[in-house]
Amino acid sequence: MKIIKTISELKIALEEIGRDKSIGFVPTMGYLHDGHLSLINEARSQNDFTVVSIFVNPTQFAPGEDLDAYPRDFDRDSRLAAAAGTDLLFFPDPGEIYPAGASTFVEVAGEITKKLCGQSRPTHFKGVTTVVNILFNLIQPNRAYFGQKDAQQVAVIKKMVRDLHLPVQLTVCPIVREADGLAMSSRNVFLTPEERNQALVLSQSLAAAKALHESGVVQVKILKDQIIGQISTMPLAVIDYVDILDFETLADIETITAPALAAAAVRFGSTRLIDNIILQ
Amino acid sequence: MKIIKTISELKIALEEIGRDKSIGFVPTMGYLHDGHLSLINEARSQNDFTVVSIFVNPTQFAPGEDLDAYPRDFDRDSRLAAAAGTDLLFFPDPGEIYPAGASTFVEVAGEITKKLCGQSRPTHFKGVTTVVNILFNLIQPNRAYFGQKDAQQVAVIKKMVRDLHLPVQLTVCPIVREADGLAMSSRNVFLTPEERNQALVLSQSLAAAKALHESGVVQVKILKDQIIGQISTMPLAVIDYVDILDFETLADIETITAPALAAAAVRFGSTRLIDNIILQ
Repeated sequence: MKIIKTISELKIALEEIGRDKSIGFVPTMGYLHDGHLSLINEARSQNDFTVVSIFVNPTQFAPGEDLDAYPRDFDRDSRLAAAAGTDLLFFPDPGEIYPAGASTFVEVAGEITKKLCGQSRPTHFKGVTTVVNILFNLIQPNRAYFGQKDAQQVAVIKKMVRDLHLPVQLTVCPIVREADGLAMSSRNVFLTPEERNQALVLSQSLAAAKALHESGVVQVKILKDQIIGQISTMPLAVIDYVDILDFETLADIETITAPALAAAAVRFGSTRLIDNIILQ
Repeated sequence: MKIIKTISELKIALEEIGRDKSIGFVPTMGYLHDGHLSLINEARSQNDFTVVSIFVNPTQFAPGEDLDAYPRDFDRDSRLAAAAGTDLLFFPDPGEIYPAGASTFVEVAGEITKKLCGQSRPTHFKGVTTVVNILFNLIQPNRAYFGQKDAQQVAVIKKMVRDLHLPVQLTVCPIVREADGLAMSSRNVFLTPEERNQALVLSQSLAAAKALHESGVVQVKILKDQIIGQISTMPLAVIDYVDILDFETLADIETITAPALAAAAVRFGSTRLIDNIILQ
């Protein structure tokens, strides 16, 4: 596995691969877990060459968010990425991606970026779409891989790719969970044992709502109340949002008649966790 | 020359060309004149394959601007493009570029889009950068060609390409002028004979400022006053702006110590003309 830090080295490496080889790309913020590795495996199985990026993107963190505290362990990440079969690991400094004076951004406007995480993190998705666009331009992958864990990010990036006609095919991989159901996240490392234990309510409440929906309940209010009620039984849980929206557009719905996304963000102590489930 | 209206046909045509051939791309809004043809010639001389687009981009016109009135003559344009050696002419409908519900845009923020035309057309460059980004994504050219006539557009697109790391090389071609000095523009067709005659003051005043600069005058105020004074002698001229700025960043300057852009926008009747000259 080649580790590359600069854009000039990246260009040379991509030139060497040649344009006739297919490239699968997995953008990450590092601190890799089995969710990331499932993306790398999928990329490997579908492409000649697999590129993984590790870049904790400053523009998707607002002042006061956890940019500095975001967990980092490059040595461990590079071992995991290599073991998973990554061909090229791109690990740029922020100044490489955003040269001095950079002021261009890519933004998906509208409801899709204002709901869910967009409410409490209003500048987050503008940072995400800008950096994903830049990474696509640099790596020019045939296919790119994202996890369903970040459901709104997936919906927003799908819309960006469609609206800007980006020449890349997106693949979305299912959420990977711990044995007890907790969705894997780089931020799980910050949970105390007690928080970790109470955080299970997140996946459990979403699963309960799915079971309720499968039993025939289609009213969003009933399903949301079920999730909120169950999460609220945990004293350490502070709900940021619980919502059920149209799966593709993230538009509000009252009744489930097409695939819907049930999504929640809940703080346990200083750690904010997100999880979601598809109701269809 | 192949004429293509849809993205699906475009993809097939580009597939046929093959990724080993270099593509030169000339984006236009049609109503071609010798300025456009100079770009096509340059593209032909540097690439295996030349693509020209004709698309009067609605998102770069504000309500009340001349979107509907913008001159169009596709039959004439296609003859001129073919005669100039264009291989593929892309002529999409707006719904092809902006499918229903499209809400993603690319914006270069900061002074560079707020000066000059950005003052009287505050949403213009956001439309330009979005459509140029889309066209680059669709055509994936090796090189793209723009005219220095639209000096601010050139500066903004250069910045977008740099900031987003777009994999395309830009070439800027000099302004092409009528024999009497009027910069070629699709909008010149709207000028009455009297307006056409008075409009010569635009290129003449810029040339006079350049001569003054070459004689040793470096104070921006003196040079600007020269241009404004000369334009003001024409009773039909209504100045939108006259300014002299840093050539690359479009930052304000008081004294010329590096290449500078002297640019003016002036209305003659209902027609707004722009012109510029480089002082170096």
